[in-house]
Amino acid sequence: MTLLGEIDERQLIEDFMSFIRPEGRVGPGDDAAITMEGVVATTDIVTFDRHFPAGMTYEQFGWHAAAVSFSDLAAMGARPTGFLAALALPADLEAQAAYDIMSGIDQCAEYCGTGIIGGDTKRGPGIVAGTALGTMDDRKPMLRSGAVPGDVVAVTGPVGGPAAALAAMDHSIEADAAKESLYTPIPRIDEGIALSASGAVSSCMDLSDGLGTALNTLCKASGVGMDIEIDFIPREDYVDRIAEESGVPVRDLLLGCGGEYELLFTADKGMLRKIYDAEVPFHIIGMVDDSGHPELLADGKRSRIGNGRY
Amino acid sequence: MTLLGEIDERQLIEDFMSFIRPEGRVGPGDDAAITMEGVVATTDIVTFDRHFPAGMTYEQFGWHAAAVSFSDLAAMGARPTGFLAALALPADLEAQAAYDIMSGIDQCAEYCGTGIIGGDTKRGPGIVAGTALGTMDDRKPMLRSGAVPGDVVAVTGPVGGPAAALAAMDHSIEADAAKESLYTPIPRIDEGIALSASGAVSSCMDLSDGLGTALNTLCKASGVGMDIEIDFIPREDYVDRIAEESGVPVRDLLLGCGGEYELLFTADKGMLRKIYDAEVPFHIIGMVDDSGHPELLADGKRSRIGNGRY
Repeated sequence: MTLLGEIDERQLIEDFMSFIRPEGRVGPGDDAAITMEGVVATTDIVTFDRHFPAGMTYEQFGWHAAAVSFSDLAAMGARPTGFLAALALPADLEAQAAYDIMSGIDQCAEYCGTGIIGGDTKRGPGIVAGTALGTMDDRKPMLRSGAVPGDVVAVTGPVGGPAAALAAMDHSIEADAAKESLYTPIPRIDEGIALSASGAVSSCMDLSDGLGTALNTLCKASGVGMDIEIDFIPREDYVDRIAEESGVPVRDLLLGCGGEYELLFTADKGMLRKIYDAEVPFHIIGMVDDSGHPELLADGKRSRIGNGRY
Repeated sequence: MTLLGEIDERQLIEDFMSFIRPEGRVGPGDDAAITMEGVVATTDIVTFDRHFPAGMTYEQFGWHAAAVSFSDLAAMGARPTGFLAALALPADLEAQAAYDIMSGIDQCAEYCGTGIIGGDTKRGPGIVAGTALGTMDDRKPMLRSGAVPGDVVAVTGPVGGPAAALAAMDHSIEADAAKESLYTPIPRIDEGIALSASGAVSSCMDLSDGLGTALNTLCKASGVGMDIEIDFIPREDYVDRIAEESGVPVRDLLLGCGGEYELLFTADKGMLRKIYDAEVPFHIIGMVDDSGHPELLADGKRSRIGNGRY
């Protein structure tokens, strides 16, 4: 008899994918599914257990619960059209905390241009299962497959903040700005819409499982490799400072940890002008090649990039 | 300080509704929401704790988890277009049980004409948060408001099965057929589509919280009363038998318990022909009046119908 706890979570998700029928236009295996009717939809569970770092407020927990799913829509280039919030909360939770969670979800949904349209609530250990709905309007969805050798690899903004925040907490280092990125991640909705509208993007996904995992996932889905230059990876100053003070390698902070919400994408070099014209900020971090996996160039040495913890 | 456990669950749902914005065309307060883009969506949590009666299999638990949400779509007259399954399952659960749950969800989705399009899985105490998506095609959604005095009140099929099953278990009475209705509820998708297409229905909802609660909800949402005749309420023979053997009043079995998945609706008397033409089976159980609440006529006596437990 095999217990669920003995199965790797990624393996389990892969096993469960066998139940997902090719009913929709897109999925499984992308950030969100798209039904035959063109509805973009994604569902995510966050739990008190696992997604509630020290110092986070209930309102921020609610915001984060919604941001996870809205970020999946952003990665496809979808415009959010609604959010459903299913809550399983403990009976001994202060009632105000429950309203704070709902308020945080509501604020994130409003930030993303939509609102809460429905929900459910039951007793439970502290779980929010959120579902974000969206539409592509007339844009083509950005998928994880599609990168080809010669494309540039880019991210929409600085990474390493959440990892730096966690490392700082572990080592009692001051890190207010880093914590902000951990507690209140910003789904890159406008960026996703503009990137998909540009027509220049060959593949895209969000960084919620960390940059290392995302690079591996894009390579696998697109059947390509990537050459990433560590010095090109954009980061706030505090990431290097916290790396130094905590002794955690910069590389681990940039690649090894989830909770990031910038977008990772690849684009045809010849079409980059379209992304500049769309005024989406981005930073090129490397190139797509045919090596079959992502490699990092750091201090003149090349090494394989692994999946991070998330 | 108020703890969540001190707040009535219905009150909590009502409080949470204040966060729901009038973004969509329909909702909050109906079985499902409809976004401005016409997407019908509903989310429901079922838990090992509360929705796993003795004798139920994991496959049936999965079926039931999906049926709850598909039934909400049926109540609006929507055609299902996808299902998202978010699972929080214990590490010490037998792995096969997790696959059985997914298989049950998958079978129910297939029965409802669609499939699983996405999902998520985390560790947890045994919770399925499901989201069903649908479309009205060109039909008008059936809402809880809209009943007017003079309309007939009807249900699409026999009720009392799940309550009879639970009463039978409590009293060690044989009840295989009753248990089937408890373990494998059938969402009335085709009936809902046909009823909404008929144009004859003035209000509708499902019976998942029980007939008593549903009658009260329709009366409140429509601002009407209802006069229900107990002998008109359709039921399988075993309901009366189990009532007699268990000593639980038939009235309680018919009105007081959730887990039912027939549809309750009201319709213009002059337009009933359209429902007959649509070949939707239904049973008239009473009439809409202006009393402001539902009353039951039983043994020549009239009494107020309360909310059931669910």
